[in-house]
Parts: sequence; C-alpha cells; structure tokens
Amino acid sequence: MLTLNRVIPMLAAVTPGEGLFALTAAARITVTPETPELLAIGGRLAELLRPATGFALPLTAGSPQVPGDIHLAITDADPALGSEGYALTIAADGITLTAHRPAGLFYGAQTVRQLLPAAIEQQSVQPGPWEIPAGTIRDAPRFAWRGAMLDVARHFFSVLDVQRYIDLLAAYKLNRLHLHLADDQGWRIEIKSWPNLAHHGGSSQVGGGRGGYYTQAEYAALVRYALDRHIVIVPEIDMPGHTNAALAAYPELNGDGIAPPRYTGTEVGFSSLCTEKELTYRFLDDVLRELAALTPGPYLHIGGDEAAATPEPAYIRFIERVQAIVAQHDKQMIGWEEVAKATLRPEAVVQFWTPRPEGYALACAAAQDGAQVILSPATKTYLDMQYDPTTPLGQHWAGYVETQAAYNWDPTTFIPGLPAANILGVESPLWTETAETFDDLAFLAFPRLAGHAEIGWSPAEGRWWEDYRVRLAAHGPRWDALGVNFYRSPQAPWTADPKK
Amino acid sequence: MLTLNRVIPMLAAVTPGEGLFALTAAARITVTPETPELLAIGGRLAELLRPATGFALPLTAGSPQVPGDIHLAITDADPALGSEGYALTIAADGITLTAHRPAGLFYGAQTVRQLLPAAIEQQSVQPGPWEIPAGTIRDAPRFAWRGAMLDVARHFFSVLDVQRYIDLLAAYKLNRLHLHLADDQGWRIEIKSWPNLAHHGGSSQVGGGRGGYYTQAEYAALVRYALDRHIVIVPEIDMPGHTNAALAAYPELNGDGIAPPRYTGTEVGFSSLCTEKELTYRFLDDVLRELAALTPGPYLHIGGDEAAATPEPAYIRFIERVQAIVAQHDKQMIGWEEVAKATLRPEAVVQFWTPRPEGYALACAAAQDGAQVILSPATKTYLDMQYDPTTPLGQHWAGYVETQAAYNWDPTTFIPGLPAANILGVESPLWTETAETFDDLAFLAFPRLAGHAEIGWSPAEGRWWEDYRVRLAAHGPRWDALGVNFYRSPQAPWTADPKK
Repeated sequence: MLTLNRVIPMLAAVTPGEGLFALTAAARITVTPETPELLAIGGRLAELLRPATGFALPLTAGSPQVPGDIHLAITDADPALGSEGYALTIAADGITLTAHRPAGLFYGAQTVRQLLPAAIEQQSVQPGPWEIPAGTIRDAPRFAWRGAMLDVARHFFSVLDVQRYIDLLAAYKLNRLHLHLADDQGWRIEIKSWPNLAHHGGSSQVGGGRGGYYTQAEYAALVRYALDRHIVIVPEIDMPGHTNAALAAYPELNGDGIAPPRYTGTEVGFSSLCTEKELTYRFLDDVLRELAALTPGPYLHIGGDEAAATPEPAYIRFIERVQAIVAQHDKQMIGWEEVAKATLRPEAVVQFWTPRPEGYALACAAAQDGAQVILSPATKTYLDMQYDPTTPLGQHWAGYVETQAAYNWDPTTFIPGLPAANILGVESPLWTETAETFDDLAFLAFPRLAGHAEIGWSPAEGRWWEDYRVRLAAHGPRWDALGVNFYRSPQAPWTADPKK
Repeated sequence: MLTLNRVIPMLAAVTPGEGLFALTAAARITVTPETPELLAIGGRLAELLRPATGFALPLTAGSPQVPGDIHLAITDADPALGSEGYALTIAADGITLTAHRPAGLFYGAQTVRQLLPAAIEQQSVQPGPWEIPAGTIRDAPRFAWRGAMLDVARHFFSVLDVQRYIDLLAAYKLNRLHLHLADDQGWRIEIKSWPNLAHHGGSSQVGGGRGGYYTQAEYAALVRYALDRHIVIVPEIDMPGHTNAALAAYPELNGDGIAPPRYTGTEVGFSSLCTEKELTYRFLDDVLRELAALTPGPYLHIGGDEAAATPEPAYIRFIERVQAIVAQHDKQMIGWEEVAKATLRPEAVVQFWTPRPEGYALACAAAQDGAQVILSPATKTYLDMQYDPTTPLGQHWAGYVETQAAYNWDPTTFIPGLPAANILGVESPLWTETAETFDDLAFLAFPRLAGHAEIGWSPAEGRWWEDYRVRLAAHGPRWDALGVNFYRSPQAPWTADPKK
C-alpha cells in the first residue's frame, strides 16, 4: 500500500504528487553544507537504510544532487520551519530534505525511514522494491517537549537497554529522555563526593535483585548517545521523599542518625531527607553540582512528589532552598506538580501527573506563577498502567489504559483552566515496579508511546483514532523487525506483512 | 542390627537382657491408671505403630498386662525419675514402661518407637519382624529446657508446617517450641485490640511474598497440638527493635507519626518502637495481655536483641518497663542476652546467642542477677547457618556449622565462668531469611537438631561423636520414611536400609 499517510507522528501537511521515488543501488546520500553534525545525520540515515536494502548508499558532502539521491540540506530560506521542522520533496528523480536547523533534518530522515516499507527495519537484505509515492511534506512539532521518562531506580536497566530505548524514542521524534535516577529502591548515578550513594544505595532494587548504577563515564556516554539522536537527557534525583536509598547509604542524612535498611518493596511516601539539617543541603549541593557538570541539557529534575513523610511547611522551605541550589548550578528546575506548593522561580517547569482536582489546581497555580507545565496525566500517559485486567505487567491504581484511551485526549483541554501558552508538552513516564527486562519495558511502552508521540508532535486538527489505528497497525511489522516486544492491542488491525 | 544403642538422644542408662521382644498382631497397648492423659499417650503410641505393622493394637485401660503387650503405667514407686524420666523393661513377654509423670511415658513411647526398625515410620504395611532386644532402660533428661525456635516472621509457615515441625521435635524429646512471631518483615499473630498488626503487618515477608498470620483460634490450636506432644509454646514478640511490621501497621507508634513501608529485605538493627511515647507501653500491654491469655505456658519472650536503633539508656528503661508488664500478666519474661543490660527480675530467663566476649559477659551478668540462661550459641545451634560453603540455603555470618561441629560442645563449658546451676538448657533457633518451604526448614534442621536434642537430654559422660554418628546414620531411613528432607552430611555413614 503506497501512501504518504503511514507516518507516526502524523505529518502536519502532505501534498500528494505524481509517480514515485524508488531507492536503488545507485543512490547516494548527500548533505550540504559539509558540517560534522550534518554528516552525522546523513550517516545515521545511511546506516538505517543499508542493512535491509543491501545498497552501498555512499555519503557525500557538498556535492550537487544527481537523480535518485537523497539530499539533506540546511537552508535559511524557510525560518518558519523552526528548530525542529523540515520540508521533504519526494519525486521520481530523488528526495530533497531541507530544514532550518539540523534537528529538522534528523526528524525528516525518520520520516523517510517510515515512508519506506516496514521491511526496511530488517537487519538482513530484503527483496524490495523500496518505493515512496511522490509528494511534498511540510512538518514541524506542535510542542517543544516530547518526552519519555524511564524509572531506572525501582529496577535498574543497563546502558545498552537505555540506548535501545533511546533509539525507539528517536524513531517517533521524541526529544527528551527523563531518567529517574534515584528513589527509595536504588540510587543509580555515581556521585564522587558521596561514593556510598552508588555503592550501597545502588545495590538494591524492587524484589531484592542486585540493582546497579551508572558510573559518571557511563552516564556521560548515555548523554552523548542521546544527543546524537537529538534527545536531551533530563536527570532526576527525587527529593525530599523517595530517598530511602540515599538515607540507607549515609546514616548522617537521617534525623536520628540511623540508616534505614535498603528497600526492595513498592510502597511510597515513607522516606524523607531531614529538612532541618544543614548537612542535607550540603549533600544536595554536592549531588546537583556533579550532576549539572555531567549534563549539558539545561534541566535538573528534583522530583518533589509524594513527600508524605515531610510536613508541608518544611516541604515548601525545602523546595525553595533546593530551587536556589539548582539555579546556582545554572540549571532550570523541574519538579512534579507538588513543587507548585512552593513559590517558584519564573523559569521553573512543573510536571503534572495527578488527574484529580488537587493536581489540576497545582498545575494552574504553577502556570499563574509563570511556570511551564509538562503533561503526564497518569490516566493517559503512565506506561506502567496495565492495558486491561488481563494483560501482564503493570499496575492499575490509575485505571487500565488501553491504546485508544492513551491516544484520545488533548493537552490543551485536559486541565480545565490551564492556559495553552503554559503547556510545554507531553511526557510518558514508565515506572518500573513490575518491569524487569527490556522486553517488559517495550511491552508497556508500545504501542501507547507512539500515540503520545503523535499527541506531542502532530496538529490537533486532523488527528483522530480511526485514522491513527490503521497507521499504528502498520508499525507492528516494524517492531517485529526490530525485535520490539509490543502489545498487540485488539483495538488495532495488526498485520504481519512487512511490505506494509 | 538388633541393639538398644540406636536411640537419639542417647539413653542415660541401659542394661542389656536376654532374648528379644517381638511386637505381634496379638499385642495390645494398656495403660494404668485410666486417665484421659494416659489414654492419649497410649493412643498416640498405637497410632505411631499401626500404619507400618498393620496390627490392630487395641488400647485398653486399667487391665492387667498379658504376654506381648506394651504396658504404660504411672507409678509413685520411683520419684527420682522426675517429671520427664521413665523406666523401660523390654522382655520376651512384653514391654513395661513406667514413669512418675505422664511426660515420662510420652518420652518412653518415643524410645520404643526408635528401638523398632526404621520401617516403623512408614505409612503403609511393612513385612517386619518388629523386634527389640531385651533389656532395661532408665532415662531422664539432663536439662529442663530442650528447645527449638522457629522464625515464622521472615517467612511465614502454615499451621500444618508448624505441626509437622512439632512432630519432629517430639520424636527427639524436645519440650519447647519458641515461635518468633513478629519481626521487621511480618507480624504473625492476630491481636484483636490492634487488628492492623496482622492485617497489614502480616501481609509481607522476605522477598515480597504474601506473608500470613495465625488467627487466635489457629494459635490456640497450635498450643494445644504442641501440649499434646508435651511441648510448651513460647511466643516471642521481638522489641524494641525488629518492629518494622508493627510500625508499618500503626503510624502512631512511630516517633514522627509516619508509618514506614512494609519490609521485605533481610537487614537488621534499623527499627525501634518509640520508647518515649506512653502509647508504646499501652500497645505492648494490649499485645502481651492477649498473648498471655492465649498461652498456657509460663513464658513470654520479648526479644530485645539487636536494638541498634534504640539508644542504650532508653533501651534499658524500656526493658525494665516491659518486664513489669510481663509480670503483671503473670508470665515469666525471656529475652535475648541483650536484655541483661537492664536490671532483671529474679525469674527472668536470658537466651545467650552471641559467642563473643560481649555475649559471654551478658550471660554471666544475667546469672549473677540470678537469671537462668538458655544456650543458643550461633556457631553451634543456629540452624540457619550453612553446613559448608557448598550447601544450599542458609547464611554464614557465624561461620559454617557442619554436623560434627553442631554436636561437639557442652553447655556447661561453653561460656567461661557461667555457673552450671544457671544453665536452663539448650535451644536451636531456625531463622528463615532463606527458608521458604517445609523442605527448606527440614534440610537446615536435620541432622543438626538431633545432635542438639542429645546435648539437651543425654548425660555428658559417654556422649561422643564416633558413637553418635553411627546412631545418627540409622536415622536417615526414618527421615526418608517420614518424607523429611534432611542433609546427608558426609560426616555420617548414612544407609538406606529401613531394617536398621
């Protein structure tokens, strides 16, 4: 089925043309101007297309386009494409991809990939043909923040697992990976000034396994890997609650000086840093300084959720002090909606998660203070909710979230009274109480995360379930080709045909 | 191999006779005087002997003995047998078992059982013959306290599992089952005035399983079942540490009013009841009152070990207050050796467990205050220690404890300076960090527990490993017949011959 209407997230504007483009063994990938960043984007596209086609697809820079090539170019001609938009012209004699900024070329390359048959995702040579119907596309994201959150604290996931997750996020034009690096069950990032955080605090996880942590070198490599795919890592150290792993590592951080045991259960709301001790703020200054130095992105996420073991006045004072520490390290503070109980600095970002009146009220209060809001409503975006009562993995405290329910909502209408101007975007958290392996993560994330990507990228107009479910079904063979363990929701007409 | 030297614990005095006794289909079991308690003991012996022999073995009371019968009689003629001793005459024309008190008859019946071939333990009819060499035996225990402790807190064990353990204890003439009913990982006994102890505090265990608890009716049934086998249940509620399950069930018991989460790990020393709150003592008064009412035995064990999260002055005040509460409920307080830091009442019993100088010092201090001491040295009696580095299950923080090491020690010489007059007896704790099933319990307990039973019962003179290991090996077929999953230590010459 040759169609341009196969891409997720849905393209913003498509004009069908005459004829078709066929990728052949003679094709080259060319880029202008010749910069390391553009060569990297062109090279990554070539790497995506070579295994299944078996074509050489040489990458050349600065050369004029010849028939059959895929040409990537940065141009100042169309600033309205913004920092992430792109234009794509598909014709019988070649493909031209232009953008105002490199990220746009990266996303345009993902579109080219998806316009080819699903067999393009195979790692061995497939018969082809590799055709795309002619037409022109102009595409740019609706929201600046299109994120996913991975909880590596409750269960630890290796650098390779996280890289594989990043690859999948990039394919759907997401641009933020929020890593939940510390919780009651584990501390996952080496902090050189407080080494026992990782050594002891990292040695546990839900259910009693060995846990683990990222050395600073490993974390830096993850940051680099993500940036190469135009994804910004957002590190979170949850506080003042969800801190049992830190409290277990350093007795002096506890009000009574007694370290609690490592925690391998799944309850919440019991732990708290001692908000009255000056040592707590010296500790946080050290942790956030090291983390800021490792993180080129502008954000530090300080959690702030479910601090039931911290009295509210102490909580507010705590958040305001931590906010100042984050600012001293030249980062922008992000917190879960509860941080809006404090008086926030204007650059603060608040992540909404509780689809109940108190959550709505906090999101609106944050917006009134000028904060930008990320929408992560648990009833729609929490990838750790079960699909239905019969599916394995996940919880259901926010209800069951099937594929259609995860897709059928809009950020600008979800929170009554929240101005659209304060909506930064959408993020899909994946908490890992029940997820232990990459297959577990993939099963919970897909297909729902694809719908969230569309909500974050595509215009609200024209986006509807009956169209989406058909496009979604055609991604089944892609995930099969990639070895992604996805949930074959009965709500989509899955096919096994890799020609689709 | 017809011999009277096959019993564990080793018999105190044996005089071989001429000929042999053969149990035949015509035999009866007779008791005098006719009391419900003696009929029960005779009935239980008949129940032990019927399945494998296939004989009717009718129980008759008050009748004169006829040739071939087994006669059980209480007699005032020999008060020196004490409350648990017995005399046994085995002759060609019958067996006569006499004792000063019913417990002696119960233990004598266990001796008769062991003098028969191992096949007697089978549950289907075996060929026989059922012969015992003639002789006379006079046997009585060395120590009053011959105990086993089962930790049903870290992993919960069902009423049926505990009953099965009781059956095995009784076969080796043990007379105390100490149930460790509450710890960080679970609260296992219904307390009607604080129902959430069992409902919430009972819903966890090591590793995250469902846990469980005994209703008061179930606990009462266990007490009854044990008493029928002359075993006194000693309930323990560990305090002020090892109390996370209680603290999780009732926020108001915590100093900060915040309930910790249920705990499923295996660390120790982190939890403490709030010793400064009056509510804590009202709570303990309620718990100990209900437990005392359910427990006909004279003891309440209040733990007191590893209270690292309680400052020592507060700990001492706490133990002294709890000691008064126990006394108000007309029970005798038992505690682990650490309770000797407090000033103990004269009837207190102290359970030694730490074979290090501080443990020795506390045991001796307790004795100087007049306390009786139970010996449970971890390096000898802790059934949860691994046998050697290759055996599954168990821990090794107190070293590896093979069968010979568990056997080769004497209570009167183990603690330098502890007067023999203050030694109440021996107890073998089985902590269940790693034990999840009855088979796990049995593997850790057997064969070591048989050796401890001998240390507690038999005279020190004449007790030696080279003799014991041969007797021990002959119990392998008994455990096989009973389906007991024991460790075939390479230190004993096991046989599979059920005629042994």
